[in-house]
Amino acid sequence: MAKSITHLLNNEFEFTVTGSLWIECNGERFLGKGRVELLEHIADTGSISKAAKKMGMSYKKAWQMISSLNQQTRKPIVVVQTGGEKGGGSVLTEEAHQLIKYHQLLRQRFAAFLKTETKAFQK
Amino acid sequence: MAKSITHLLNNEFEFTVTGSLWIECNGERFLGKGRVELLEHIADTGSISKAAKKMGMSYKKAWQMISSLNQQTRKPIVVVQTGGEKGGGSVLTEEAHQLIKYHQLLRQRFAAFLKTETKAFQK
Repeated sequence: MAKSITHLLNNEFEFTVTGSLWIECNGERFLGKGRVELLEHIADTGSISKAAKKMGMSYKKAWQMISSLNQQTRKPIVVVQTGGEKGGGSVLTEEAHQLIKYHQLLRQRFAAFLKTETKAFQK
Repeated sequence: MAKSITHLLNNEFEFTVTGSLWIECNGERFLGKGRVELLEHIADTGSISKAAKKMGMSYKKAWQMISSLNQQTRKPIVVVQTGGEKGGGSVLTEEAHQLIKYHQLLRQRFAAFLKTETKAFQK
C-alpha cells in the first residue's frame, strides 16, 4: 500500500495521481484511446471515412491505423466490404469487439490503480 | 486479473502494456519524472543553475519548477543559501528526500502494474 506523504503537502490544494496507458507491439503503438475511439466510430458509422471525420483525422491516417492494427492481429479487425446494395462500407469483426472490451477492462484496472494511489493523499 | 487476448494477436510480435504517471496539484503538474530528475541533479551539484544545464533546461524554467514545488508543499523542498565560504548554493530539504523516495516507490508500484498487465499477453 502507498505510504502517505500528506504531511508534506500544502493542504489548501488537492493532489491526484494521474497518468496515461497504451499497448505497444514491438515498440510501436498497438492500442490506446485513439485507436479504440476510431474503432467505435467505425462501428457507429460503418465507414472509415466518416469515422476519421468525426475525429478530425485525415482518411489516410485512419486507414493507416486500421492497416497497422490488421497486421498486428491474427485476424482482421476491420473488414472493408465492397459493392452490394448499400455500396460497401467497413465493419468491425468479432475480434475487434473483443479488443475493445479488453481495453475497457484494462482502463478500469488502471483507474482503480490511480484511485488507490490518490487515496494516499487524502487526509 | 487481466483476461488474455493473446489468441487475437499476431504471435510474431511482442506486446507490452506501457504508460506514464505523474501527480497533479489542483489540476497542475506537481511531481513527475522531470521534476524528480531536477531535484536529484540539484542534490548532486548543489546548484539550480548546474542542475538546469544538465537537463538542457533554462535556469528560468528550473527556477519556476522549484518555486512551484515550494508552494505546493507545506515546507520548502529546495533552499537557496546565500553567501558563506562556498558562495551559496541550493540544497534539498529532508522533505525533498521524502518526496523523491515516495516517487520512487510509486514508480515501482506502477511498474508492477504494467508487468502484471503485460504478462496477460504472454503465451
